[in-house]
Amino acid sequence: MPIVSPIPLNPLIDGRQSERAMLVRRGVQRLLAQMGVTSIPELCLANGRRADLLAITAKGEIWIIEIKSSVEDFRVDRKWPEYRLYCDRFFFATHPQVPADIFPDECGFILADGYGAEMIRDAPEHRLSAATRKALMLRIARAGAARLTAAEMAGVSVPTLANEGE
Amino acid sequence: MPIVSPIPLNPLIDGRQSERAMLVRRGVQRLLAQMGVTSIPELCLANGRRADLLAITAKGEIWIIEIKSSVEDFRVDRKWPEYRLYCDRFFFATHPQVPADIFPDECGFILADGYGAEMIRDAPEHRLSAATRKALMLRIARAGAARLTAAEMAGVSVPTLANEGE
Repeated sequence: MPIVSPIPLNPLIDGRQSERAMLVRRGVQRLLAQMGVTSIPELCLANGRRADLLAITAKGEIWIIEIKSSVEDFRVDRKWPEYRLYCDRFFFATHPQVPADIFPDECGFILADGYGAEMIRDAPEHRLSAATRKALMLRIARAGAARLTAAEMAGVSVPTLANEGE
Repeated sequence: MPIVSPIPLNPLIDGRQSERAMLVRRGVQRLLAQMGVTSIPELCLANGRRADLLAITAKGEIWIIEIKSSVEDFRVDRKWPEYRLYCDRFFFATHPQVPADIFPDECGFILADGYGAEMIRDAPEHRLSAATRKALMLRIARAGAARLTAAEMAGVSVPTLANEGE
């Protein structure tokens, strides 16, 4: 992939995410940003699974948001309960073409399009142990730093932001 | 700043970093990457100061590396001892044109050019309290995630990496 391209590519689409899933993700990212919650996409967890979007609140609470782009996408995923082991709250996110009632009541639910999102149902809290939180926060910190360094080494612009860590 | 530019700019040069300081930083970043230590540049700390480079080891140890591009740059900095409050180890980094003996013996010392770096003197350990480490790790995680999201929203390519969080 060229470092500089005249067409704005999104390399985070790695073939595993559909265009529709990316739209949902974008909407959720905007909602989270408005809430002051930072998020990192495609984070590999200690069990080898990859969270679609992992969010970190200002108080250090960790949420996982799994994006489902179709009914089928949800039906084939039998492993979503495992994500609960790595977050304080767990949400599904989808778009209006997917029936909301297929998603379990005991999970949070976010409805999104490419422009924004709405939290339809908050997620119940199941607090992480201190040890799991510590290991997970280290993983997030290192993953973010590694991606930023790789981007910088490739000459890609990633400026610092005001109040980014607060 | 345009999202796509034919000239690879480095926006991390915000006028406060000299070209020479950026070369030192690049060398240090490469050394750290070789060591499996991830790093994030220009991180604002709780006391309002900004660390030139903050590194996170696989075990969760936090280092701060302050870059000094000239004798004058070191002489005018009377506040470097404050950085010790936010890391387990503290290093100065510079380039071969700056005399090494101006830097205090009680700090680690890294000699760098634009291609790589060498750790001339390891830094003594002064372990952070659990509470400070927790707050700092949260700050790093959120800062990294916020920068990545801002880049993604601007259409900039920041791919995930293999084993990035481990």
